[in-house]
Amino acid sequence: MGTIYGLGLGPGDPDLMSVRADRLLRGARHVAYFRKAGRTGQARKIVNGMIPGDAVELPMEYPVTTEIPVSDPRYNVALSAFYTDCTARLKALAEQGQDVVVLCEGDPFFYGSFMHLYERLRGDTPLQIVPAITGMSGAWTATGNPITWGDDVLTVLMGTLPEEVLASRMAQTDALVVMKIGRNFDKVKRALHAAGLHDRAWLVEYAQMPDQSVTRLAEAGDRVTPYFSIILVHGRGRRP
Amino acid sequence: MGTIYGLGLGPGDPDLMSVRADRLLRGARHVAYFRKAGRTGQARKIVNGMIPGDAVELPMEYPVTTEIPVSDPRYNVALSAFYTDCTARLKALAEQGQDVVVLCEGDPFFYGSFMHLYERLRGDTPLQIVPAITGMSGAWTATGNPITWGDDVLTVLMGTLPEEVLASRMAQTDALVVMKIGRNFDKVKRALHAAGLHDRAWLVEYAQMPDQSVTRLAEAGDRVTPYFSIILVHGRGRRP
Ligand SMILES: C[S@@+](CC[C@H](N)C(=O)[O-])C[C@H]1O[C@@H](n2cnc3c(N)ncnc32)[C@H](O)[C@@H]1O
Ligand SMILES: C[S@@+](CC[C@H](N)C(=O)[O-])C[C@H]1O[C@@H](n2cnc3c(N)ncnc32)[C@H](O)[C@@H]1O
Repeated sequence: MGTIYGLGLGPGDPDLMSVRADRLLRGARHVAYFRKAGRTGQARKIVNGMIPGDAVELPMEYPVTTEIPVSDPRYNVALSAFYTDCTARLKALAEQGQDVVVLCEGDPFFYGSFMHLYERLRGDTPLQIVPAITGMSGAWTATGNPITWGDDVLTVLMGTLPEEVLASRMAQTDALVVMKIGRNFDKVKRALHAAGLHDRAWLVEYAQMPDQSVTRLAEAGDRVTPYFSIILVHGRGRRP
Repeated sequence: MGTIYGLGLGPGDPDLMSVRADRLLRGARHVAYFRKAGRTGQARKIVNGMIPGDAVELPMEYPVTTEIPVSDPRYNVALSAFYTDCTARLKALAEQGQDVVVLCEGDPFFYGSFMHLYERLRGDTPLQIVPAITGMSGAWTATGNPITWGDDVLTVLMGTLPEEVLASRMAQTDALVVMKIGRNFDKVKRALHAAGLHDRAWLVEYAQMPDQSVTRLAEAGDRVTPYFSIILVHGRGRRP
Protein backbone atom coordinates (compact mmCIF):
# COMPACT_ATOMS: atom_id res chain seq x y z
CA MET A 1 0.00 0.00 0.00
CA GLY A 2 1.00 3.58 -0.56
CA THR A 3 1.60 6.09 2.24
CA ILE A 4 -0.42 9.25 2.85
CA TYR A 5 1.84 12.10 4.00
CA GLY A 6 0.48 15.01 6.04
CA LEU A 7 3.09 17.44 4.79
CA GLY A 8 3.55 20.54 6.94
CA LEU A 9 4.60 23.50 4.78
CA GLY A 10 5.35 26.00 7.54
CA PRO A 11 4.05 29.58 7.59
CA GLY A 12 4.34 30.33 3.88
CA ASP A 13 7.89 30.89 2.68
CA PRO A 14 9.09 27.75 0.80
CA ASP A 15 12.57 28.47 2.22
CA LEU A 16 11.08 27.69 5.66
CA MET A 17 9.83 24.25 4.67
CA SER A 18 11.80 21.42 6.22
CA VAL A 19 14.43 19.62 4.20
CA ARG A 20 12.21 16.52 4.44
CA ALA A 21 9.06 18.29 3.23
CA ASP A 22 10.98 19.88 0.36
CA ARG A 23 12.33 16.50 -0.72
CA LEU A 24 8.98 14.70 -0.44
CA LEU A 25 7.18 17.42 -2.38
CA ARG A 26 9.74 17.56 -5.19
CA GLY A 27 9.49 13.80 -5.59
CA ALA A 28 5.69 13.60 -5.30
CA ARG A 29 3.44 11.80 -7.82
CA HIS A 30 0.11 12.79 -6.21
CA VAL A 31 -0.41 16.10 -4.42
CA ALA A 32 -3.68 16.80 -2.56
CA TYR A 33 -4.77 20.03 -0.88
CA PHE A 34 -7.85 21.77 0.48
CA ARG A 35 -9.25 24.86 -1.15
CA LYS A 36 -12.43 26.88 -1.34
CA ALA A 37 -14.40 26.40 -4.56
CA GLY A 38 -12.98 28.61 -7.28
CA ARG A 39 -9.87 29.59 -5.26
CA THR A 40 -6.22 28.48 -5.56
CA GLY A 41 -5.93 27.61 -1.88
CA GLN A 42 -3.22 28.99 0.40
CA ALA A 43 -1.29 25.70 0.72
CA ARG A 44 -1.20 25.22 -3.05
CA LYS A 45 -0.04 28.81 -3.49
CA ILE A 46 2.91 28.32 -1.11
CA VAL A 47 4.37 25.49 -3.20
CA ASN A 48 3.85 27.11 -6.59
CA GLY A 49 6.60 25.95 -8.95
CA MET A 50 7.72 23.13 -6.65
CA ILE A 51 5.31 20.35 -7.69
CA PRO A 52 6.81 18.09 -10.38
CA GLY A 53 5.25 18.76 -13.81
CA ASP A 54 3.94 15.22 -14.18
CA ALA A 55 2.41 14.96 -10.69
CA VAL A 56 -1.35 14.58 -10.40
CA GLU A 57 -3.03 17.31 -8.35
CA LEU A 58 -6.07 16.52 -6.20
CA PRO A 59 -7.81 19.67 -5.05
CA MET A 60 -10.30 18.93 -2.24
CA GLU A 61 -12.96 21.65 -2.39
CA TYR A 62 -14.78 22.58 0.80
CA PRO A 63 -18.56 22.42 0.49
CA VAL A 64 -20.14 25.87 0.46
CA THR A 65 -21.41 26.42 4.01
CA THR A 66 -21.61 30.21 4.11
CA GLU A 67 -25.38 30.05 4.63
CA ILE A 68 -25.16 27.59 7.54
CA PRO A 69 -24.00 28.93 10.94
CA VAL A 70 -21.17 26.89 12.51
CA SER A 71 -23.43 26.08 15.47
CA ASP A 72 -26.09 24.52 13.18
CA PRO A 73 -25.82 20.70 13.18
CA ARG A 74 -26.13 20.76 9.36
CA TYR A 75 -22.75 22.48 9.24
CA ASN A 76 -21.07 19.52 10.89
CA VAL A 77 -23.00 17.06 8.73
CA ALA A 78 -21.88 18.78 5.51
CA LEU A 79 -18.25 18.97 6.62
CA SER A 80 -18.22 15.42 7.87
CA ALA A 81 -19.57 14.10 4.55
CA PHE A 82 -16.88 16.11 2.76
CA TYR A 83 -14.06 14.68 4.89
CA THR A 84 -15.41 11.16 4.41
CA ASP A 85 -15.41 11.68 0.67
CA CYS A 86 -11.80 13.03 0.67
CA THR A 87 -10.75 10.05 2.80
CA ALA A 88 -12.20 7.62 0.26
CA ARG A 89 -10.27 9.30 -2.58
CA LEU A 90 -6.96 9.18 -0.69
CA LYS A 91 -7.50 5.62 0.50
CA ALA A 92 -8.26 4.43 -3.04
CA LEU A 93 -4.92 5.82 -4.21
CA ALA A 94 -3.04 4.23 -1.31
CA GLU A 95 -4.69 0.89 -2.13
CA GLN A 96 -3.34 1.20 -5.68
CA GLY A 97 0.13 1.49 -4.12
CA GLN A 98 0.39 5.24 -4.70
CA ASP A 99 1.93 7.65 -2.19
CA VAL A 100 -0.01 10.89 -1.74
CA VAL A 101 1.36 14.11 -0.31
CA VAL A 102 -1.33 16.22 1.41
CA LEU A 103 -0.28 19.87 1.73
CA CYS A 104 -0.88 21.39 5.18
CA GLU A 105 -0.44 25.04 6.17
CA GLY A 106 1.84 25.37 9.19
CA ASP A 107 2.13 22.26 11.36
CA PRO A 108 -0.35 19.49 10.42
CA PHE A 109 -1.25 18.53 14.03
CA PHE A 110 -1.88 22.10 15.25
CA TYR A 111 -5.51 23.09 14.49
CA GLY A 112 -5.13 21.61 11.00
CA SER A 113 -7.77 20.38 8.53
CA PHE A 114 -5.78 17.32 7.58
CA MET A 115 -6.36 15.99 11.10
CA HIS A 116 -9.94 15.17 10.09
CA LEU A 117 -8.68 12.92 7.28
CA TYR A 118 -5.98 11.48 9.52
CA GLU A 119 -8.51 10.35 12.13
CA ARG A 120 -10.59 8.65 9.42
CA LEU A 121 -7.61 6.98 7.74
CA ARG A 122 -5.65 5.78 10.76
CA GLY A 123 -5.58 2.06 11.30
CA ASP A 124 -6.33 1.28 7.65
CA THR A 125 -3.73 3.24 5.72
CA PRO A 126 -0.01 3.94 6.23
CA LEU A 127 0.26 7.56 7.41
CA GLN A 128 3.22 9.83 8.02
CA ILE A 129 3.15 13.32 9.48
CA VAL A 130 5.90 15.80 8.68
CA PRO A 131 5.85 18.49 11.41
CA ALA A 132 6.50 22.07 10.39
CA ILE A 133 6.98 25.61 11.60
CA THR A 134 3.63 26.92 12.87
CA GLY A 135 2.07 30.13 11.60
CA MET A 136 2.54 31.61 15.08
CA SER A 137 6.33 31.01 15.01
CA GLY A 138 6.37 32.76 11.65
CA ALA A 139 4.36 35.61 13.16
CA TRP A 140 6.41 36.23 16.30
CA THR A 141 9.62 36.03 14.30
CA ALA A 142 8.18 38.69 11.99
CA THR A 143 7.62 41.06 14.95
CA GLY A 144 11.33 40.92 15.80
CA ASN A 145 10.52 40.17 19.45
CA PRO A 146 10.74 36.89 21.34
CA ILE A 147 7.33 35.59 22.42
CA THR A 148 8.16 33.93 25.78
CA TRP A 149 10.80 34.36 28.51
CA GLY A 150 11.66 32.46 31.67
CA ASP A 151 8.50 31.04 33.24
CA ASP A 152 6.03 32.89 31.02
CA VAL A 153 2.70 31.12 30.48
CA LEU A 154 1.69 31.07 26.80
CA THR A 155 -1.99 30.79 25.89
CA VAL A 156 -3.18 30.07 22.35
CA LEU A 157 -6.79 31.08 21.64
CA MET A 158 -9.03 30.87 18.58
CA GLY A 159 -10.84 34.09 17.65
CA THR A 160 -13.98 31.97 17.22
CA LEU A 161 -14.37 31.66 21.03
CA PRO A 162 -17.04 33.78 22.78
CA GLU A 163 -15.95 37.28 23.77
CA GLU A 164 -16.14 36.68 27.55
CA VAL A 165 -14.07 33.51 27.25
CA LEU A 166 -11.46 35.36 25.20
CA ALA A 167 -11.31 38.26 27.66
CA SER A 168 -10.98 36.10 30.77
CA ARG A 169 -8.31 33.86 29.23
CA MET A 170 -6.39 36.86 27.98
CA ALA A 171 -6.45 38.48 31.41
CA GLN A 172 -4.69 35.46 32.93
CA THR A 173 -1.80 34.85 30.56
CA ASP A 174 1.73 36.24 30.24
CA ALA A 175 2.09 35.72 26.49
CA LEU A 176 -0.76 35.37 24.02
CA VAL A 177 -1.44 34.08 20.52
CA VAL A 178 -4.87 34.54 18.91
CA MET A 179 -5.55 32.77 15.61
CA LYS A 180 -8.54 32.76 13.24
CA ILE A 181 -8.98 36.51 13.37
CA GLY A 182 -10.75 37.52 10.10
CA ARG A 183 -14.42 38.18 10.89
CA ASN A 184 -13.69 37.83 14.62
CA PHE A 185 -11.42 40.89 14.60
CA ASP A 186 -13.72 43.35 16.39
CA LYS A 187 -14.66 40.81 19.04
CA VAL A 188 -10.98 39.95 19.65
CA LYS A 189 -10.11 43.66 19.94
CA ARG A 190 -12.87 44.24 22.50
CA ALA A 191 -11.62 41.27 24.51
CA LEU A 192 -8.04 42.61 24.40
CA HIS A 193 -9.28 45.97 25.67
CA ALA A 194 -11.20 44.29 28.48
CA ALA A 195 -8.09 42.32 29.46
CA GLY A 196 -5.89 45.43 29.36
CA LEU A 197 -3.71 43.97 26.59
CA HIS A 198 -4.77 46.03 23.58
CA ASP A 199 -1.82 48.43 23.77
CA ARG A 200 0.73 45.60 23.90
CA ALA A 201 -0.80 43.60 21.02
CA TRP A 202 0.62 43.11 17.53
CA LEU A 203 -1.24 42.15 14.37
CA VAL A 204 0.63 39.99 11.86
CA GLU A 205 -1.05 39.31 8.51
CA TYR A 206 0.34 36.73 6.08
CA ALA A 207 3.41 35.97 8.22
CA GLN A 208 6.41 34.92 6.09
CA MET A 209 4.38 35.33 2.87
CA PRO A 210 4.94 37.92 0.12
CA ASP A 211 2.14 40.18 1.49
CA GLN A 212 3.37 40.06 5.11
CA SER A 213 2.27 42.98 7.26
CA VAL A 214 3.34 43.59 10.89
CA THR A 215 1.57 46.35 12.85
CA ARG A 216 1.01 47.32 16.42
CA LEU A 217 -2.70 46.70 16.91
CA ALA A 218 -3.19 50.23 18.23
CA GLU A 219 -1.97 51.50 14.86
CA ALA A 220 -3.87 49.02 12.71
CA GLY A 221 -6.97 51.21 12.39
CA ASP A 222 -10.23 49.80 11.09
CA ARG A 223 -8.78 47.56 8.45
CA VAL A 224 -10.37 44.29 7.41
CA THR A 225 -8.02 41.47 8.40
CA PRO A 226 -7.63 38.33 6.34
CA TYR A 227 -8.08 34.76 7.59
CA PHE A 228 -4.28 34.44 7.66
CA SER A 229 -3.80 36.84 10.56
CA ILE A 230 -2.46 36.31 14.05
CA ILE A 231 -2.60 38.61 17.07
CA LEU A 232 0.27 38.36 19.54
CA VAL A 233 1.14 39.73 22.95
CA HIS A 234 4.77 39.11 23.93
CA GLY A 235 5.62 37.84 27.40
CA ARG A 236 7.82 39.86 29.75
CA GLY A 237 9.31 37.12 31.94
CA ARG A 238 12.70 36.89 33.60
CA ARG A 239 15.68 38.07 31.53
CA PRO A 240 19.08 37.79 33.22
CA MET B 1 29.37 44.59 9.26
CA GLY B 2 28.62 40.89 9.45
CA THR B 3 25.24 39.45 10.41
CA ILE B 4 24.49 37.34 13.48
CA TYR B 5 21.99 34.58 12.66
CA GLY B 6 19.79 33.04 15.35
CA LEU B 7 19.49 29.75 13.54
CA GLY B 8 16.59 27.57 14.67
CA LEU B 9 17.43 23.87 14.28
CA GLY B 10 14.03 22.40 15.07
CA PRO B 11 13.46 19.52 17.51
CA GLY B 12 16.55 17.49 16.70
CA ASP B 13 16.38 15.64 13.39
CA PRO B 14 18.53 17.49 10.80
CA ASP B 15 15.95 16.44 8.18
CA LEU B 16 13.48 18.71 10.02
CA MET B 17 15.68 21.80 9.75
CA SER B 18 14.37 24.39 7.31
CA VAL B 19 15.85 24.60 3.84
CA ARG B 20 17.14 28.06 4.83
CA ALA B 21 18.79 26.87 8.06
CA ASP B 22 20.36 23.95 6.24
CA ARG B 23 21.82 26.25 3.58
CA LEU B 24 23.10 28.83 6.08
CA LEU B 25 24.72 26.19 8.23
CA ARG B 26 26.44 24.40 5.35
CA GLY B 27 27.87 27.73 4.18
CA ALA B 28 28.85 28.99 7.65
CA ARG B 29 32.33 30.31 8.51
CA HIS B 30 31.66 30.87 12.24
CA VAL B 31 29.34 28.65 14.27
CA ALA B 32 28.50 29.53 17.89
CA TYR B 33 26.47 27.48 20.38
CA PHE B 34 25.76 27.19 24.10
CA ARG B 35 26.89 24.20 26.09
CA LYS B 36 27.55 23.15 29.65
CA ALA B 37 31.23 22.97 30.58
CA GLY B 38 32.67 19.66 29.44
CA ARG B 39 29.58 18.67 27.40
CA THR B 40 29.00 18.61 23.63
CA GLY B 41 25.80 20.63 23.84
CA GLN B 42 22.50 19.46 22.35
CA ALA B 43 22.43 22.03 19.54
CA ARG B 44 25.97 21.13 18.45
CA LYS B 45 25.06 17.44 18.55
CA ILE B 46 22.09 17.94 16.22
CA VAL B 47 24.27 19.37 13.45
CA ASN B 48 27.09 16.85 13.75
CA GLY B 49 28.66 16.35 10.32
CA MET B 50 26.97 19.42 8.81
CA ILE B 51 29.40 22.18 9.81
CA PRO B 52 31.97 22.89 7.08
CA GLY B 53 35.40 21.50 7.98
CA ASP B 54 37.10 24.90 7.87
CA ALA B 55 34.46 26.76 9.92
CA VAL B 56 35.49 28.18 13.28
CA GLU B 57 33.45 26.87 16.23
CA LEU B 58 32.65 29.13 19.18
CA PRO B 59 31.35 27.14 22.12
CA MET B 60 29.77 29.43 24.74
CA GLU B 61 30.06 27.63 28.09
CA TYR B 62 27.46 28.36 30.76
CA PRO B 63 29.00 29.37 34.08
CA VAL B 64 28.64 26.68 36.72
CA THR B 65 25.67 27.74 38.85
CA THR B 66 24.64 24.42 40.36
CA GLU B 67 25.41 25.72 43.87
CA ILE B 68 23.33 28.89 43.44
CA PRO B 69 19.51 28.57 43.61
CA VAL B 70 17.72 30.22 40.66
CA SER B 71 15.96 32.56 43.10
CA ASP B 72 19.30 33.86 44.46
CA PRO B 73 20.19 37.24 42.88
CA ARG B 74 23.76 35.94 42.35
CA TYR B 75 22.35 33.47 39.84
CA ASN B 76 21.07 36.26 37.64
CA VAL B 77 24.30 38.23 38.06
CA ALA B 78 26.42 35.27 36.93
CA LEU B 79 24.21 34.55 33.93
CA SER B 80 23.98 38.17 32.95
CA ALA B 81 27.78 38.55 32.99
CA PHE B 82 28.03 35.41 30.85
CA TYR B 83 25.57 36.72 28.25
CA THR B 84 27.36 40.08 28.15
CA ASP B 85 30.63 38.30 27.51
CA CYS B 86 29.13 36.16 24.70
CA THR B 87 27.63 39.30 23.17
CA ALA B 88 31.04 40.98 23.07
CA ARG B 89 32.58 37.98 21.29
CA LEU B 90 29.83 37.88 18.65
CA LYS B 91 29.85 41.63 18.16
CA ALA B 92 33.62 41.69 17.66
CA LEU B 93 33.27 39.16 14.83
CA ALA B 94 30.43 41.10 13.20
CA GLU B 95 32.57 44.25 13.36
CA GLN B 96 35.28 42.38 11.48
CA GLY B 97 32.69 41.75 8.76
CA GLN B 98 32.16 38.11 9.69
CA ASP B 99 28.76 36.41 9.67
CA VAL B 100 28.12 34.16 12.66
CA VAL B 101 25.55 31.40 12.86
CA VAL B 102 24.28 30.80 16.42
CA LEU B 103 22.71 27.37 16.79
CA CYS B 104 19.35 27.34 18.63
CA GLU B 105 17.36 24.29 19.71
CA GLY B 106 13.79 24.45 18.41
CA ASP B 107 12.55 27.93 17.54
CA PRO B 108 14.91 30.73 18.65
CA PHE B 109 12.16 33.10 19.91
CA PHE B 110 10.32 30.47 21.98
CA TYR B 111 11.90 30.25 25.46
CA GLY B 112 15.36 30.28 23.85
CA SER B 113 18.76 31.22 25.30
CA PHE B 114 19.80 33.13 22.21
CA MET B 115 17.11 35.70 23.03
CA HIS B 116 19.39 37.02 25.80
CA LEU B 117 22.13 37.73 23.26
CA TYR B 118 19.61 39.11 20.78
CA GLU B 119 18.33 41.70 23.27
CA ARG B 120 21.89 42.83 23.99
CA LEU B 121 22.92 42.96 20.31
CA ARG B 122 19.86 44.58 18.76
CA GLY B 123 20.30 48.11 17.53
CA ASP B 124 24.09 47.72 17.15
CA THR B 125 24.50 44.61 15.04
CA PRO B 126 22.67 43.20 12.00
CA LEU B 127 20.57 40.28 13.27
CA GLN B 128 18.47 37.68 11.50
CA ILE B 129 16.26 35.06 13.08
CA VAL B 130 15.48 31.83 11.27
CA PRO B 131 12.30 30.37 12.85
CA ALA B 132 12.09 26.62 13.28
CA ILE B 133 9.91 23.73 14.33
CA THR B 134 9.47 23.86 18.11
CA GLY B 135 10.30 20.94 20.38
CA MET B 136 6.58 20.70 21.23
CA SER B 137 5.61 20.22 17.56
CA GLY B 138 8.20 17.47 17.39
CA ALA B 139 6.72 15.95 20.54
CA TRP B 140 3.03 15.95 19.58
CA THR B 141 3.90 14.58 16.14
CA ALA B 142 5.78 11.76 17.88
CA THR B 143 2.64 10.79 19.86
CA GLY B 144 0.73 10.26 16.61
CA ASN B 145 -2.16 12.41 17.90
CA PRO B 146 -3.09 15.98 16.96
CA ILE B 147 -2.66 18.41 19.85
CA THR B 148 -5.56 20.85 19.25
CA TRP B 149 -8.99 20.72 17.58
CA GLY B 150 -11.65 23.32 16.82
CA ASP B 151 -11.71 25.97 19.56
CA ASP B 152 -9.38 24.17 21.98
CA VAL B 153 -7.38 26.44 24.28
CA LEU B 154 -3.70 25.47 24.38
CA THR B 155 -1.63 26.36 27.43
CA VAL B 156 2.17 26.09 27.50
CA LEU B 157 3.71 25.87 30.99
CA MET B 158 7.25 25.59 32.29
CA GLY B 159 7.86 22.82 34.84
CA THR B 160 9.78 25.40 36.89
CA LEU B 161 6.52 27.11 37.97
CA PRO B 162 5.22 26.50 41.52
CA GLU B 163 3.07 23.40 41.97
CA GLU B 164 -0.16 25.33 42.76
CA VAL B 165 0.27 27.52 39.69
CA LEU B 166 0.83 24.46 37.52
CA ALA B 167 -2.22 22.66 38.93
CA SER B 168 -4.58 25.61 38.55
CA ARG B 169 -3.46 26.41 35.00
CA MET B 170 -3.70 22.74 34.03
CA ALA B 171 -7.23 22.50 35.38
CA GLN B 172 -8.39 25.29 33.07
CA THR B 173 -6.99 24.26 29.70
CA ASP B 174 -8.18 21.98 26.90
CA ALA B 175 -4.73 21.07 25.56
CA LEU B 176 -1.49 21.26 27.50
CA VAL B 177 2.25 21.39 26.91
CA VAL B 178 4.69 21.30 29.84
CA MET B 179 8.36 21.93 29.12
CA LYS B 180 11.48 21.90 31.32
CA ILE B 181 10.54 18.67 33.06
CA GLY B 182 13.82 17.11 34.31
CA ARG B 183 14.10 17.73 38.05
CA ASN B 184 10.54 19.14 38.11
CA PHE B 185 9.05 15.79 37.07
CA ASP B 186 7.51 14.78 40.42
CA LYS B 187 6.04 18.24 40.97
CA VAL B 188 4.54 18.26 37.46
CA LYS B 189 3.05 14.80 38.00
CA ARG B 190 1.44 15.88 41.29
CA ALA B 191 -0.02 18.95 39.56
CA LEU B 192 -1.41 16.78 36.73
CA HIS B 193 -3.05 14.49 39.31
CA ALA B 194 -4.56 17.49 41.10
CA ALA B 195 -5.93 18.79 37.78
CA GLY B 196 -7.34 15.40 36.83
CA LEU B 197 -5.13 15.17 33.75
CA HIS B 198 -2.59 12.55 34.77
CA ASP B 199 -4.33 9.69 32.96
CA ARG B 200 -4.51 11.61 29.68
CA ALA B 201 -0.88 12.83 29.74
CA TRP B 202 1.97 11.68 27.52
CA LEU B 203 5.70 11.93 28.19
CA VAL B 204 7.95 12.52 25.18
CA GLU B 205 11.71 12.40 25.74
CA TYR B 206 14.17 13.51 23.05
CA ALA B 207 11.44 14.14 20.45
CA GLN B 208 12.69 13.58 16.88
CA MET B 209 16.15 12.62 18.16
CA PRO B 210 17.81 9.19 17.96
CA ASP B 211 16.87 8.35 21.60
CA GLN B 212 13.21 9.40 21.23
CA SER B 213 10.84 7.79 23.72
CA VAL B 214 7.04 8.23 23.75
CA THR B 215 5.10 6.88 26.75
CA ARG B 216 1.77 7.40 28.39
CA LEU B 217 2.66 9.09 31.65
CA ALA B 218 0.68 6.50 33.61
CA GLU B 219 3.04 3.86 32.20
CA ALA B 220 6.26 5.84 32.61
CA GLY B 221 6.95 4.56 36.13
CA ASP B 222 9.55 6.21 38.32
CA ARG B 223 12.08 6.94 35.66
CA VAL B 224 14.37 9.96 35.73
CA THR B 225 13.46 12.23 32.82
CA PRO B 226 16.04 14.24 30.93
CA TYR B 227 15.97 18.01 30.36
CA PHE B 228 14.77 17.33 26.80
CA SER B 229 11.36 16.06 27.84
CA ILE B 230 7.89 17.40 27.19
CA ILE B 231 4.60 16.40 28.78
CA LEU B 232 1.48 16.75 26.61
CA VAL B 233 -2.26 16.47 27.05
CA HIS B 234 -4.14 16.44 23.75
CA GLY B 235 -7.25 18.58 23.27
CA ARG B 236 -10.60 16.98 22.50
CA GLY B 237 -12.36 19.82 20.66
CA ARG B 238 -14.91 19.71 17.85
CA ARG B 239 -14.26 17.14 15.09
CA PRO B 240 -16.81 17.11 12.26
C1 LIG C 1 -6.80 26.21 10.57
S1 LIG C 1 -5.55 27.17 11.40
C2 LIG C 1 -4.10 26.32 10.82
C3 LIG C 1 -2.88 26.53 11.68
C4 LIG C 1 -1.64 25.86 11.12
N1 LIG C 1 -1.77 24.42 11.14
C5 LIG C 1 -0.39 26.29 11.90
O1 LIG C 1 0.39 25.45 12.34
O2 LIG C 1 -0.20 27.52 12.02
C6 LIG C 1 -5.56 28.67 10.46
C7 LIG C 1 -5.10 29.88 11.23
O3 LIG C 1 -3.69 29.83 11.35
C8 LIG C 1 -3.16 31.14 11.40
N2 LIG C 1 -2.03 31.20 10.45
C9 LIG C 1 -1.39 30.13 9.93
N3 LIG C 1 -0.36 30.52 9.16
C10 LIG C 1 -0.34 31.87 9.19
C11 LIG C 1 0.51 32.86 8.59
N4 LIG C 1 1.53 32.52 7.80
N5 LIG C 1 0.24 34.16 8.84
C12 LIG C 1 -0.79 34.51 9.63
N6 LIG C 1 -1.62 33.62 10.20
C13 LIG C 1 -1.39 32.31 10.00
C14 LIG C 1 -4.28 32.11 11.12
O4 LIG C 1 -4.69 32.68 12.33
C15 LIG C 1 -5.35 31.20 10.55
O5 LIG C 1 -6.64 31.69 10.86
C1 LIG D 1 15.05 26.40 26.89
S1 LIG D 1 13.66 25.55 26.25
C2 LIG D 1 13.94 25.74 24.52
C3 LIG D 1 12.71 25.52 23.68
C4 LIG D 1 13.00 25.61 22.17
N1 LIG D 1 13.42 26.95 21.80
C5 LIG D 1 11.82 25.16 21.34
O1 LIG D 1 11.39 25.87 20.44
O2 LIG D 1 11.32 24.05 21.62
C6 LIG D 1 14.14 23.87 26.59
C7 LIG D 1 12.97 22.91 26.75
O3 LIG D 1 12.43 22.63 25.47
C8 LIG D 1 11.88 21.33 25.47
N2 LIG D 1 12.37 20.65 24.24
C9 LIG D 1 12.91 21.28 23.18
N3 LIG D 1 13.20 20.40 22.20
C10 LIG D 1 12.81 19.17 22.66
C11 LIG D 1 12.83 17.86 22.09
N4 LIG D 1 13.31 17.62 20.87
N5 LIG D 1 12.35 16.85 22.83
C12 LIG D 1 11.85 17.07 24.07
N6 LIG D 1 11.83 18.28 24.65
C13 LIG D 1 12.29 19.33 23.95
C14 LIG D 1 12.24 20.64 26.76
O4 LIG D 1 11.10 20.67 27.60
C15 LIG D 1 13.33 21.55 27.31
O5 LIG D 1 13.32 21.55 28.71
